[in-house]
Amino acid sequence: MKEDTLFAEVCEHARGIAVLGSVEAVLGWDEQTMLPKRAAEHRGVQAAALASLLHHRWLDPGFGESLATLRESMQGNSHDPAVRCTIAKLWEDRERRLRMPPRLVEELASVGVAAQQAWVEARRCGDWSQLQPWLEKMFALKREQAACRAPELEPYDALLDEYEPGGRSAEIAERFARLREGIVPLVREVAAATTRPDMSVLEGSYPQAAQELFVRHVAEQIGFDFERGRLDTAAHPFCSSLGPSDCRITTRWDEKALVTSLYGVLHEAGHGLYEQGLPADWFGLPPGEAASLGIHESQSRLWENLVGRSSEFWQWCFPLAQKFFPTVFADVRTEQVHQAMLEVKPSMIRVEADEVTYNLHVMMRFDLERAVVSGDLTLAELPAAWNERFEHDFGLVPASDAEGVLQDIHWSAGLVGYFPTYTLGNIYAAELMAAAEHDLPNLRAGFAAGQFAELLHWLSERVHKHGRQQTSDALVEQAIGRPPAETALLESLRRRYGPAYGLS
Amino acid sequence: MKEDTLFAEVCEHARGIAVLGSVEAVLGWDEQTMLPKRAAEHRGVQAAALASLLHHRWLDPGFGESLATLRESMQGNSHDPAVRCTIAKLWEDRERRLRMPPRLVEELASVGVAAQQAWVEARRCGDWSQLQPWLEKMFALKREQAACRAPELEPYDALLDEYEPGGRSAEIAERFARLREGIVPLVREVAAATTRPDMSVLEGSYPQAAQELFVRHVAEQIGFDFERGRLDTAAHPFCSSLGPSDCRITTRWDEKALVTSLYGVLHEAGHGLYEQGLPADWFGLPPGEAASLGIHESQSRLWENLVGRSSEFWQWCFPLAQKFFPTVFADVRTEQVHQAMLEVKPSMIRVEADEVTYNLHVMMRFDLERAVVSGDLTLAELPAAWNERFEHDFGLVPASDAEGVLQDIHWSAGLVGYFPTYTLGNIYAAELMAAAEHDLPNLRAGFAAGQFAELLHWLSERVHKHGRQQTSDALVEQAIGRPPAETALLESLRRRYGPAYGLS
Repeated sequence: MKEDTLFAEVCEHARGIAVLGSVEAVLGWDEQTMLPKRAAEHRGVQAAALASLLHHRWLDPGFGESLATLRESMQGNSHDPAVRCTIAKLWEDRERRLRMPPRLVEELASVGVAAQQAWVEARRCGDWSQLQPWLEKMFALKREQAACRAPELEPYDALLDEYEPGGRSAEIAERFARLREGIVPLVREVAAATTRPDMSVLEGSYPQAAQELFVRHVAEQIGFDFERGRLDTAAHPFCSSLGPSDCRITTRWDEKALVTSLYGVLHEAGHGLYEQGLPADWFGLPPGEAASLGIHESQSRLWENLVGRSSEFWQWCFPLAQKFFPTVFADVRTEQVHQAMLEVKPSMIRVEADEVTYNLHVMMRFDLERAVVSGDLTLAELPAAWNERFEHDFGLVPASDAEGVLQDIHWSAGLVGYFPTYTLGNIYAAELMAAAEHDLPNLRAGFAAGQFAELLHWLSERVHKHGRQQTSDALVEQAIGRPPAETALLESLRRRYGPAYGLS
Repeated sequence: MKEDTLFAEVCEHARGIAVLGSVEAVLGWDEQTMLPKRAAEHRGVQAAALASLLHHRWLDPGFGESLATLRESMQGNSHDPAVRCTIAKLWEDRERRLRMPPRLVEELASVGVAAQQAWVEARRCGDWSQLQPWLEKMFALKREQAACRAPELEPYDALLDEYEPGGRSAEIAERFARLREGIVPLVREVAAATTRPDMSVLEGSYPQAAQELFVRHVAEQIGFDFERGRLDTAAHPFCSSLGPSDCRITTRWDEKALVTSLYGVLHEAGHGLYEQGLPADWFGLPPGEAASLGIHESQSRLWENLVGRSSEFWQWCFPLAQKFFPTVFADVRTEQVHQAMLEVKPSMIRVEADEVTYNLHVMMRFDLERAVVSGDLTLAELPAAWNERFEHDFGLVPASDAEGVLQDIHWSAGLVGYFPTYTLGNIYAAELMAAAEHDLPNLRAGFAAGQFAELLHWLSERVHKHGRQQTSDALVEQAIGRPPAETALLESLRRRYGPAYGLS
């Protein structure tokens, strides 16, 4: 068979897998936004049926043989990097699945369900001993998964690689250590500052109906295309693509705090703009897929923080907010509201953390989970290690494990090696924003006029349209012209937060 | 292999098909309620992938062999009618699919899409000539389908049988003729009546938010379980089950007319109560499925008209409506509002028709489509035949084909033999209601106190829990103790509408 016919066939098969994957995404979105209370059990049955179908499609021997043939014949030869990427990544993705024994897949799923149930109860009671045995099982399975998945890598890296392809923990650890050296002093300076934003300017009532219209307007303004997407309500906000032109974001609402929905939507719409910017022609194939979780998070954090907490953004956004919430914003000034968006307040809980302290939460989880995977730290020792590290970084001790080591669902769900992608995203976001500002001198002035298309276009050209053709670091390096570093993030934080706290 | 093991395997396979079918239902519900504008194309791809998977599961040869073995060995022998029904109906369902050549299935799908597009345009222009060639193709395919599906039946009956298993058009025609003999004079008497409901009592503004709360309350009160279902908005309201505990109803809203959402929701909730009452243990197997479209419609029409337009229902509902719409209902009496729900007003459009004239719309479509299928009427002659019949039954002539022969999508979509199920539903509903009233002397008094559980329980025992184990007529005969007739519907109409129009 001619190579181009074979390539077309392989793409057809992979697209078929992606179509079923997108049906799985419909089930998942509906489950989190729409599902009646008592329909959960059947939804599990539907999801399992789809997962099984997908697994069989991936492991189809003919598909494997065609990929093997193409790999030999074309991989190094094609002039088109998207073709090379398609063959290489499909081969890799299939190999990783092949290497997982079905028993291990099933155990990960069943222990994951049980561990998450145990986590809910353990967190409720603040009782680590209820969760510890389940995490022992889970981490043992994850070590086994690491050995199957990529035996050539350190176990932690084999797990990390699933979320951040090409990421290596030793290098990340060095980067994070330098970042921490910059953030810890910044947090101390902020804590000691006498100048502080006046948070009372945000006090008031924000009716949900008005919030819905307001955040929808903001999402549209930054470029989220509602003809190719939706905004709905979810207890745990997320962004999910149900097809190449069907990106759905979600948020939750707090009638006492506009920031919950506003920054939630800016974050999820940032993910959404990335999904909407992926090349639709390559739907279902690696060049049409996101590069990594780190890159995905860079897009959400860029819009949430680097745009949404900028002074210029508020020059445009404040009059709009006044229209929707005339009472709350009757007697305050733009700059006061902008400053209030820059509150830094060390807190026990990661998901409530401000932009400055957030990375400290992430980095300690990275260090701890890495030590558990390597065996340097036992799960019995984990709560004490958590509290010690937390006190060191934040100057606070969690009152109970519920607001300490038990706060996140990730480990119970088997998401080990996932946390560092949050901070990688912040690092990439700062680098990309700095480069965009350098390339586009009128960028910030545009924000003040509600113009965000220039930034979106830049991101689309430099990041979105390349899909999964590079590793995260290589993609960002190509976008900004040099290897990404953590310094841009530190500079960005100090530049934006310094004035709000009167730092020199 | 032992027979009971084989039976269990067959059920397992059939349930697997039903699970995929329920995923298809998720896609369909989402398409009609949630889908972003530009996501329609991919949704088509997803639906086609599911349809193809389902088709292959149905035609699985091992499944066929097991069914054949069971049919020989158990069918006549099992003491359990549900087991007999399962084997017989699965065999039949599979046979019907087997007999359809793949080419015919594809042509029906593709001509269906094109014909529906042509219909939209033809209706917009009121130009029959744009649709006629597509309907020529469609009716030719339907005749072919009839010959494949059930060559032993008249072509029309082979099509009807898909929606109304066991239904025979000659017998239905006789029943309809008798019904028409009763309805045509009733319509004439109403038209000549000097006493009429005062429709001005309904005039006013009904904010959508209040309607949403109100109709949800009504649906809950009649027994719709929102822990196993939802209510959403759709341009063309429907009810769909996405799983055994996931029944979703929809409605549309008109801020000038409460009746649109109220009777829409009573209708769809009636369908929903049937779905929620099917035996969940038999999910995915014939004893857990609806008996027919006629029986389904009997449940929706019973709650919509026989409950929802009764005097006792309004004794309970009026004070509730006053709470939600205090301005509109400030100065009117219960009985005035109830009378206004009984307006009879001949109209060109079936979906806007009142309960009395509705069946005339249906019966003329039945006669006309039957004549087209048999060849007694050409499609070129259809518009004139439509107008002639319409004038005879209603005393009106459609101003254009847009409000005449072009008004319904059914024929363009290939739904031939579907219309009569609407009127069969009305006939069954009247019989069931009469029998329930006979069995439960306090039934109507209960309505006045908002008590509907007794009726729901009766319907559940007599209809819902039997699934697809009988034909429609047999099921209703078993429920009411004698063969169903059209007289109960005529009596019900005259009893309820007579007083509103001062008829003797």
